[in-house]
Amino acid sequence: MNDRTTVSPSARTTIRRLPELANHDRAMLYSIVDEAYVCHIAFAANQDTHCIPTAHWRKDDYLYIHGSNGSRLIKALSAGAQASVAVTLLDGLVLAKSAFSHSMNYRSTVVYGQFEVVQDSAEKLAALDVFMDKIAAGRNHEARPGNSKEINATSVLRISLAEAAVKVSDSLPSDKDEDLDLAVWTGILPLKTTRGMPIHAESGEHIAVPDYVKNWAD
Amino acid sequence: MNDRTTVSPSARTTIRRLPELANHDRAMLYSIVDEAYVCHIAFAANQDTHCIPTAHWRKDDYLYIHGSNGSRLIKALSAGAQASVAVTLLDGLVLAKSAFSHSMNYRSTVVYGQFEVVQDSAEKLAALDVFMDKIAAGRNHEARPGNSKEINATSVLRISLAEAAVKVSDSLPSDKDEDLDLAVWTGILPLKTTRGMPIHAESGEHIAVPDYVKNWAD
Repeated sequence: MNDRTTVSPSARTTIRRLPELANHDRAMLYSIVDEAYVCHIAFAANQDTHCIPTAHWRKDDYLYIHGSNGSRLIKALSAGAQASVAVTLLDGLVLAKSAFSHSMNYRSTVVYGQFEVVQDSAEKLAALDVFMDKIAAGRNHEARPGNSKEINATSVLRISLAEAAVKVSDSLPSDKDEDLDLAVWTGILPLKTTRGMPIHAESGEHIAVPDYVKNWAD
Repeated sequence: MNDRTTVSPSARTTIRRLPELANHDRAMLYSIVDEAYVCHIAFAANQDTHCIPTAHWRKDDYLYIHGSNGSRLIKALSAGAQASVAVTLLDGLVLAKSAFSHSMNYRSTVVYGQFEVVQDSAEKLAALDVFMDKIAAGRNHEARPGNSKEINATSVLRISLAEAAVKVSDSLPSDKDEDLDLAVWTGILPLKTTRGMPIHAESGEHIAVPDYVKNWAD
């Protein structure tokens, strides 16, 4: 069972390949989910298995998504399809002395379970506020809020993070002893998601530029 | 049917949500697959649906992956599991006048089909060479090549890109007419994968620093 600070593996979240990379820290799980904007969801519908990317956010111990009521993803998950949700952050390419010892550094989680529909309107709006805060803190109070038609056409779903595998690779290359003397460069080629200069859709002094836009670019 | 320059939709790759974002250019499909280092694969095994991230590369009209013979992913896909492979590049957050008109810019593909095992040793090595060239052009000739034990313990699988949905969103925010006069900042907050300064695993003048390391960082 999970307590509030750790992630305990179930049969299907026990990491069997490179088990030394398994991470059982719930704070790490949360940081991965929070840092990524997009997750991938696997589910079965109409005899096919699908892998669909979608925006996500987290509130407490749940990963949330939203979408149009009519979308295949939302319909299948609302109907209780078994789901697997992957969130992956790639941190670098790891170059070793031998071809087969090359690897990647990453932080990733795979969550198993079923989504539940957030039915209550107030809860739904509160959840969407958390999403907006992830995109741009404070924008809740600037953009026009959803009207009842928009809110009713949109579903908000959530899945518990109770059953999650977390795997983190953050290391220098690991080579076999017999390869260590080879005169081959080894190291890490880092990769990172960075924030570029905002693109203004409109010009005009009547529109204040919010701090989260001014401060966006790395 | 697909010709060599376009992507024609099947029943399950016809884009129904925001169909105006469907892209039928095979060059776009290839560029998405080539730019991303990691794909997500959905498949069913042991009554569960899984979503697993893994490194991929492309050769001609196939997406390739590799892995240890014993891994659940490789075993299930080698046995012919129906698979769906998503490759997603997130380009930015799109901030609109109203909360519900916010969106994201991205380039993505979802491929359907079954993987096939690359059985022939020479073909397997040739495919792995293409992977290494994607990671670091020319490193094939520097790192120690795989020996027969390493090669035999590793599976290389490929899936045809014939049945692929490609969806590209690359636009400024789109607001409803009645929202256009709101004094709310709109625009794009760009996101980009960038390359950081290489981390050298060893010091020492006896090891030449290859050009792909010298030229890595943005």
